[in-house]
Amino acid sequence: MSIEPLAWEGGRLRLLDQTQLPNDEVWLELTDHTQVAEAINSMRVRGAPAIGVAGAFGLALAALTSEATDCETLLRELRRAAEELIATRPTGANLSWAVKRTLAAAEDASDVESARTSVLREAQAIQREDIEGNRALGRHALELVPERATFLTHCNAGALATAGYGTALGIVRAAAEAGKQVSVVATETRPLSQGARLTAWELLRDGIECTLIVDGAVGPLLRRGATDLVVVGADRIAANGDTANKIGTYNVAVLAREHGVPFYVAAPTSTIDMTLLTGDSIVIEERAAEEVTAPGGRRIAPPDVDVANPAFDVTPHELIAAIITERGIARPPYASALSEMMR
Amino acid sequence: MSIEPLAWEGGRLRLLDQTQLPNDEVWLELTDHTQVAEAINSMRVRGAPAIGVAGAFGLALAALTSEATDCETLLRELRRAAEELIATRPTGANLSWAVKRTLAAAEDASDVESARTSVLREAQAIQREDIEGNRALGRHALELVPERATFLTHCNAGALATAGYGTALGIVRAAAEAGKQVSVVATETRPLSQGARLTAWELLRDGIECTLIVDGAVGPLLRRGATDLVVVGADRIAANGDTANKIGTYNVAVLAREHGVPFYVAAPTSTIDMTLLTGDSIVIEERAAEEVTAPGGRRIAPPDVDVANPAFDVTPHELIAAIITERGIARPPYASALSEMMR
Repeated sequence: MSIEPLAWEGGRLRLLDQTQLPNDEVWLELTDHTQVAEAINSMRVRGAPAIGVAGAFGLALAALTSEATDCETLLRELRRAAEELIATRPTGANLSWAVKRTLAAAEDASDVESARTSVLREAQAIQREDIEGNRALGRHALELVPERATFLTHCNAGALATAGYGTALGIVRAAAEAGKQVSVVATETRPLSQGARLTAWELLRDGIECTLIVDGAVGPLLRRGATDLVVVGADRIAANGDTANKIGTYNVAVLAREHGVPFYVAAPTSTIDMTLLTGDSIVIEERAAEEVTAPGGRRIAPPDVDVANPAFDVTPHELIAAIITERGIARPPYASALSEMMR
Repeated sequence: MSIEPLAWEGGRLRLLDQTQLPNDEVWLELTDHTQVAEAINSMRVRGAPAIGVAGAFGLALAALTSEATDCETLLRELRRAAEELIATRPTGANLSWAVKRTLAAAEDASDVESARTSVLREAQAIQREDIEGNRALGRHALELVPERATFLTHCNAGALATAGYGTALGIVRAAAEAGKQVSVVATETRPLSQGARLTAWELLRDGIECTLIVDGAVGPLLRRGATDLVVVGADRIAANGDTANKIGTYNVAVLAREHGVPFYVAAPTSTIDMTLLTGDSIVIEERAAEEVTAPGGRRIAPPDVDVANPAFDVTPHELIAAIITERGIARPPYASALSEMMR
């Protein structure tokens, strides 16, 4: 079974600290929602769907640790905790979706104890649905995957980016389970090297062939016809199909089109934000310069250099051959396809 | 004055160890040609033109340390040293050009002592001509540079990649000296981060504004119109204009065309290899996996992952708006333009 990076056990959230992979497999035990917020902010848990699940459990921890004796007080505390959790990272859609859904469960409850129970149940449901959804997503995608397929993927949209199984890498797993012969080329994905640290780690752990390249090596690889399809995850998808994903994704999408290789986005429908008409309105998180200038604490640039470090970019829908979700495959024109899918 | 990374002093080659930049400025004193070969192989000196100059001085050291008392013995030793030096790195054209030119100076000499003197003089001439050539190249390029110009460059084609002044960054310097308002966006250039370590360092040292980005951030930057032109160096240019340069260059070239930003190659004519009809015959050096999996010795990928680590890629001539050399600007069609330039 592929790894599941979040587990609810004994009233605590056990969480795999992904900043320490691949060298150390360290599990944290989080007991309140501020620890969860810190874990999201520091990217101990990352990947839009996994962040959503973590946020939901964060709210569950806020409910369980609250000393409120009436619903009104509890809800006031939960709303504050929800805001704190949602504020940690702005670009991904799933975090606010999951936290709001969990909060709504509390709002529907009739007394404090049932509110606490409902919040936890809702978080667990989101976790369970995420894994089931990823398996469905993988099955839907099978028709797009040749019998012998070399995938190219960027960043990590795997089991580690979700509650389990993965979105982009869930497709790889589903294809392997269906008897197809699969291998993956993983881009390193600077600045935080999720491809090297996480994608390679989880694929090798599951016995799936993986070749690592630097981000700069994508073009020559596609040019010599070495890959059959590109599949990436998503952090937020606008109503027209424009997709925010890890910085570097747009480069890959342009290069894929240049070489006639189909470029697919794989994400749960909780990533789709129908309130945004286009990707132009997606807020792109800018992260600390040190991620670029001092990876892993080792300084590789002069201290006084200016740095631009956007964590995400937006791939325009024209470059996307299909958006694959747990509900099926959306194809262009996306405005109507996504609107129908989200109805 | 911009830095000059190689200096002949007191019968030794002083060489700036670029693997230690930007944190430490360490100068090595090399006394024989095997030390020079090691320095090239380990990329203590790098950049095709700088490697050429180092190789020429390597041969000078071989001549000066030889105990040969007759021309025939000396030449035999020098030919062996030349082979050793040329074998260190296969892709760049300038190394073999410079070493062969230096060797020819020995071959023309009438006695052992004058052979030794000629070899050293030739190496010094190559060094001097490289700097003068870069200044001429920068002047030729002025017509391509707007009065306010934001350059994008990849890797380091600067003073550190040459005997001094630089090729791509020589154009930036020439534009600044001509009173233009210039700034540079430098890509990190994984795996060895020459953009972060070297380009940023030498530009800030000369007071030129520099912003560092990861390689994955090139597309969004070009898409929002933030750069006026792309200029890169070259390791080998085929007769049709196809250009081998640091891995990642081809990505940048495709993205530049996608966004209508002119993509220029800047290199001395010693980089042009008229014996190759196209870039398809350029030998691409594959370097150690550890450059990707353990940058600076810090492991970031599982030990058993497969790695592809080509050090260079080839940008087809169709993507290149002009090739700028010390002799002038070559424009498409390159087959005739380069042939005329090299006559």
